[in-house]
Amino acid sequence: MNKHGLEMKYNTASKDELQRELAALEKKYNEYKAMGLKLDMSRGKPDCNQLNLSEGLLTAVSTSEECFTDAGVDCRNYGLPDGIPEIRKIFSDLFEIPAANIIISGPSSLRLMFDTVARNMIFGVSEGAKPWGAQGKIKFLCPVPGYDRHFAICEIFGIEMINIPMTPTGPDMDMIEKLASSDPQIKGIFCVPKYSNPTGITFSEETVRRFASLKTAAPDFRIFWDNAYAIHNLYDEGDKLLNLFDEAKAAGNPDIAYIFASFAKISFSGGGVSMFASSNANIDFARKIISMQTICCDKVNQLRHARFFKNAEGVLAHMKLHAALIRPKFEAVLEIFGRELTPCGIANWTKPNGGYFISLDLPEGTAKRTYDLAKAAGVTLTNVGATFPYGRDEKDCNLRIAPTFPTIDDLVKAAEVMCVCAKIADVEKLLAE
Amino acid sequence: MNKHGLEMKYNTASKDELQRELAALEKKYNEYKAMGLKLDMSRGKPDCNQLNLSEGLLTAVSTSEECFTDAGVDCRNYGLPDGIPEIRKIFSDLFEIPAANIIISGPSSLRLMFDTVARNMIFGVSEGAKPWGAQGKIKFLCPVPGYDRHFAICEIFGIEMINIPMTPTGPDMDMIEKLASSDPQIKGIFCVPKYSNPTGITFSEETVRRFASLKTAAPDFRIFWDNAYAIHNLYDEGDKLLNLFDEAKAAGNPDIAYIFASFAKISFSGGGVSMFASSNANIDFARKIISMQTICCDKVNQLRHARFFKNAEGVLAHMKLHAALIRPKFEAVLEIFGRELTPCGIANWTKPNGGYFISLDLPEGTAKRTYDLAKAAGVTLTNVGATFPYGRDEKDCNLRIAPTFPTIDDLVKAAEVMCVCAKIADVEKLLAE
Repeated sequence: MNKHGLEMKYNTASKDELQRELAALEKKYNEYKAMGLKLDMSRGKPDCNQLNLSEGLLTAVSTSEECFTDAGVDCRNYGLPDGIPEIRKIFSDLFEIPAANIIISGPSSLRLMFDTVARNMIFGVSEGAKPWGAQGKIKFLCPVPGYDRHFAICEIFGIEMINIPMTPTGPDMDMIEKLASSDPQIKGIFCVPKYSNPTGITFSEETVRRFASLKTAAPDFRIFWDNAYAIHNLYDEGDKLLNLFDEAKAAGNPDIAYIFASFAKISFSGGGVSMFASSNANIDFARKIISMQTICCDKVNQLRHARFFKNAEGVLAHMKLHAALIRPKFEAVLEIFGRELTPCGIANWTKPNGGYFISLDLPEGTAKRTYDLAKAAGVTLTNVGATFPYGRDEKDCNLRIAPTFPTIDDLVKAAEVMCVCAKIADVEKLLAE
Repeated sequence: MNKHGLEMKYNTASKDELQRELAALEKKYNEYKAMGLKLDMSRGKPDCNQLNLSEGLLTAVSTSEECFTDAGVDCRNYGLPDGIPEIRKIFSDLFEIPAANIIISGPSSLRLMFDTVARNMIFGVSEGAKPWGAQGKIKFLCPVPGYDRHFAICEIFGIEMINIPMTPTGPDMDMIEKLASSDPQIKGIFCVPKYSNPTGITFSEETVRRFASLKTAAPDFRIFWDNAYAIHNLYDEGDKLLNLFDEAKAAGNPDIAYIFASFAKISFSGGGVSMFASSNANIDFARKIISMQTICCDKVNQLRHARFFKNAEGVLAHMKLHAALIRPKFEAVLEIFGRELTPCGIANWTKPNGGYFISLDLPEGTAKRTYDLAKAAGVTLTNVGATFPYGRDEKDCNLRIAPTFPTIDDLVKAAEVMCVCAKIADVEKLLAE
């Protein structure tokens, strides 16, 4: 017998067995409910201990004399709209993209993505290109399950979203190639290519190469490559992602890729630095417009990062400290899922080597009920549907688990509650059939 | 005799007198040229000593424990998209606008203005309003001389600019009322209402009231009130500017005003915080879109500002330290202009009580020649025409002087060179007539 129920595969159990299981689960559930829990597994936020790792960042630039770049530029004053050379070099080394192809911005790479869509809507993708906003209804391809904030950007700009199923090697490339090559209204795709949000999948070499050489009906199609978890390994042996910048260039398709990254989950989520990288043509065009938008970003904070991390190796070493803190959390959740859900045969989930999420697929039609039960017991999960465009998970089966923020004790409790809720939802469903 | 020429009114001098004057001026000019000067009065940047005043900002938040707001929010993590309460209160007190009507952003208020135009182009000014970008050729009213970066925003968005002459009480309100009430394609105006860039003029009470009750043919007309120098007084008795937020509300016209400000010239130009303030309806609408653009801004830096300045009084006290540093620079330039230019009767200039600029009007057709001569002698001035839309000063007479950045010795030298150049340009012109 497992901890919170009988040892049985639900879909082969008799109604009687299921009735007894339900009674046992409800007893357990009511015990949890009585605890007055207040637990949150909803957002991919670093926890306090992770943030403490960057305490040295706060004092990395402490005096007026320290506010100057190596070349003597005063970071407190206007200037260097592309960012200071020191931080551009760190991003360049980490992402293996020439510094000349990198623009550094404030804390939020999401803002860079939003602004890039906004620029393309108003100004088009290049000098003389027709603005996306002047081309009627445009469309984006959306790997699902995916990142809710990507979908939100598309939605607010009125961009129609087309679901593309994720596979273990990335989004379904056959489907992407077929659609992108046939419909000129399809202008782009948002991807999280490494430790994807929420599946944790890293795109295979073949997937990246097919993206790099994608033939699109729209000349102004762009890949929004949100490399948010590029160095966010949970284990020493991280997944390897092929470099889209190089591959696109080699394929004679350099302008197809916009690459984004940030330090939001390296230093401070509300105080990092971010990167926009692309081909010479794309960067030159973006720079021209960005230079009208702002004189410069916060260079003092860029310098703090450069001084604190020193170089790319410093950043990678720092990420091992993060991994040591959050790996046990991922493993605890996976252990509980294995113990509680495997025996009942009711769920599938990903076992990521990095990133911030576990994607849990429950039996169809039970995710929302699981969410509601958990909520009533004081456990907040990511909204069901959030991982799909328009918030619509047609099968009502996917839950995104964000294990990093809670303490491990809270997390274990939350995962156990969630498993009981998922089991109740499934048993209820089976009994109603 | 003054320092660099004869004591004479040029426009009443004989050709012989002017020939002798030109010879004397050219001798002086060549002496300056031989010095190999490299001086810059082109941009309104704080100098190093001003930036040093905020050294304490660098260590105002030094430990992990100090990263929390008074209410216990961890500024290093996601959250509080409108900004932390502490910094919203400081802006609220300084600008006498309720905190609920304020959104705090990163270092650049220019970015807030650009983004606000971009939002209106794509989404319109309110729920259901037609986007500016879908209304054909739209127009903005542009007080001249004015701020080049405002004009640049209009230009890149393809907004037609209509010059509005500045008067000693602000822009010509008769002209603004006539145009705005008759042409629905006129959607807005950029203003620097206090210590205007470059004239230093502060709008009179009547001007502000007329703005507040402006009747516009376009229901989606907005005033971009760039209050960049609101507390940047050179003297204890600063100019008084009426509160447009209150006046617009009182006039039943609350949605007409977008108000912007920043700490770019209070703390660090490349590392401050900025404010967007407006009516409930405008803020709610902007917030909805901004929340898709970013999860939050750099709250650690907001907290640094709140801790360092403590409160509005702390900011005002800090501004007196700035004034003590830059007042002598303004006075030095004005003294040189008075000594060198008044006797020749060739120029008019403003004597601002605050802000970052002196606006110098030379005889028609001599500003560009003055700029070129100064440039050749190693003194960089703001591009002639920069203070006008499309970079076109039709009369070729206005120069913007930015006295803050150079040391006082450099500034004195630069101003003297510039006066010699202006005099040469005028004498050349008179001789050619």
